[in-house]
Amino acid sequence: MTDQYRLHYAPDNASLVIRLVLEELGLPYETCLVDRRAGAQESAAYRAINPNGLIPVLETPDGAIFETAAILLWLADRHGQLAPAPNSPERGDFLKWLFFASNTLHADLRISFYPEKYIGAAPQDQTVLTRSIQQRLAVHLRHLDDLAATKPNWFGHKVPSVLDYYLGCMMRWMALYPAQSDRSWYRLTDYPHLRQLLQQLERRPATQTAQQAEGLGATPFSQPILANPPEGSAT
Amino acid sequence: MTDQYRLHYAPDNASLVIRLVLEELGLPYETCLVDRRAGAQESAAYRAINPNGLIPVLETPDGAIFETAAILLWLADRHGQLAPAPNSPERGDFLKWLFFASNTLHADLRISFYPEKYIGAAPQDQTVLTRSIQQRLAVHLRHLDDLAATKPNWFGHKVPSVLDYYLGCMMRWMALYPAQSDRSWYRLTDYPHLRQLLQQLERRPATQTAQQAEGLGATPFSQPILANPPEGSAT
Repeated sequence: MTDQYRLHYAPDNASLVIRLVLEELGLPYETCLVDRRAGAQESAAYRAINPNGLIPVLETPDGAIFETAAILLWLADRHGQLAPAPNSPERGDFLKWLFFASNTLHADLRISFYPEKYIGAAPQDQTVLTRSIQQRLAVHLRHLDDLAATKPNWFGHKVPSVLDYYLGCMMRWMALYPAQSDRSWYRLTDYPHLRQLLQQLERRPATQTAQQAEGLGATPFSQPILANPPEGSAT
Repeated sequence: MTDQYRLHYAPDNASLVIRLVLEELGLPYETCLVDRRAGAQESAAYRAINPNGLIPVLETPDGAIFETAAILLWLADRHGQLAPAPNSPERGDFLKWLFFASNTLHADLRISFYPEKYIGAAPQDQTVLTRSIQQRLAVHLRHLDDLAATKPNWFGHKVPSVLDYYLGCMMRWMALYPAQSDRSWYRLTDYPHLRQLLQQLERRPATQTAQQAEGLGATPFSQPILANPPEGSAT
């Protein structure tokens, strides 16, 4: 490849987090659209780089990496920015919240977006599951708002960490998806420290570049609207 | 504290993974029993070190770390063993499967153990959810068996990585829990490469020490029996 990195992406998918971080790091990269309308993430070619058929994948000189948080941590460590270094005293604190974001917040979010992958086809089962998950999500956000209130130097500052971008995108998606559902459980005003974090993200040049590339609108984190991307489809 | 590390544990809980890795690394540590029968993980004192009320927590000179996989990665990096180093070419491959183990395999496993935390109190809802999750778990194990077949140098070798121990414990729990449920979906013979990994883990001195400390029996990974711990309770 021409550039060092190639990002397999679909607009407003988890690949958005990686795009933002590549931009924040000022790294050159190619993008490769995964055509979700055609189910390209399920194709044999895509499964050869991610057997789980999920977006994103980042191709690197060391091979293809999948799992959003794995890519985030790898990029931060490789380029020595946007996360506490492996030997810094803040590393443990950072890692525990990064894994929490990945295995609890993001994992629960995925259930609320794709309940059919967890509980089968019956709509009433899906509704029960989704409502219950939304209660969990509100608790997780409460913990993260409490964390932001303590101002650790890798969360919620002017120069964002990879975790800021990760959380920013997840909160965007909570406000927007699933598009047909009751999302009244999500009130950004309940989380004032996280709201400030989102507003700070919106002032970054990286965010402005991603807004244009994926059609995200003017306030993609604090007051998002559905994406209107120049190519591809979010779902 | 006398030792550098203090592990908050309950027998046969996720803290078991951390105990095994501390033993494999030959590190001194104290243990502090979390009395699950009394719900000690929900107490204010425990929530002060982990607001999510989950086991384990590892107290370190850099503060308390929670999230099993975060502790694993932190220990491996801090002691320079049991995982590819941050700048090694295998780091990305390792991280993507560590995060997969945490945010997909472990996250799904948690749903199957505690469906009431995800879908409320109705037993029929819980049964539908658990059965669906078990189908997902089987797919995840298939991917991991395929991975083990490729023999990456950080997975399934004689000297285990932190991921080996993590997976070993999760497969133990799949075979045992929930104790009252149909677990016929789990057949170790379907995953020959993972079976070999489990058998290799059982030959480690670290495993023998953990067996005694938590009452795990002779073949705790490949043919487990319910724990009979000298103190505390698994549930």
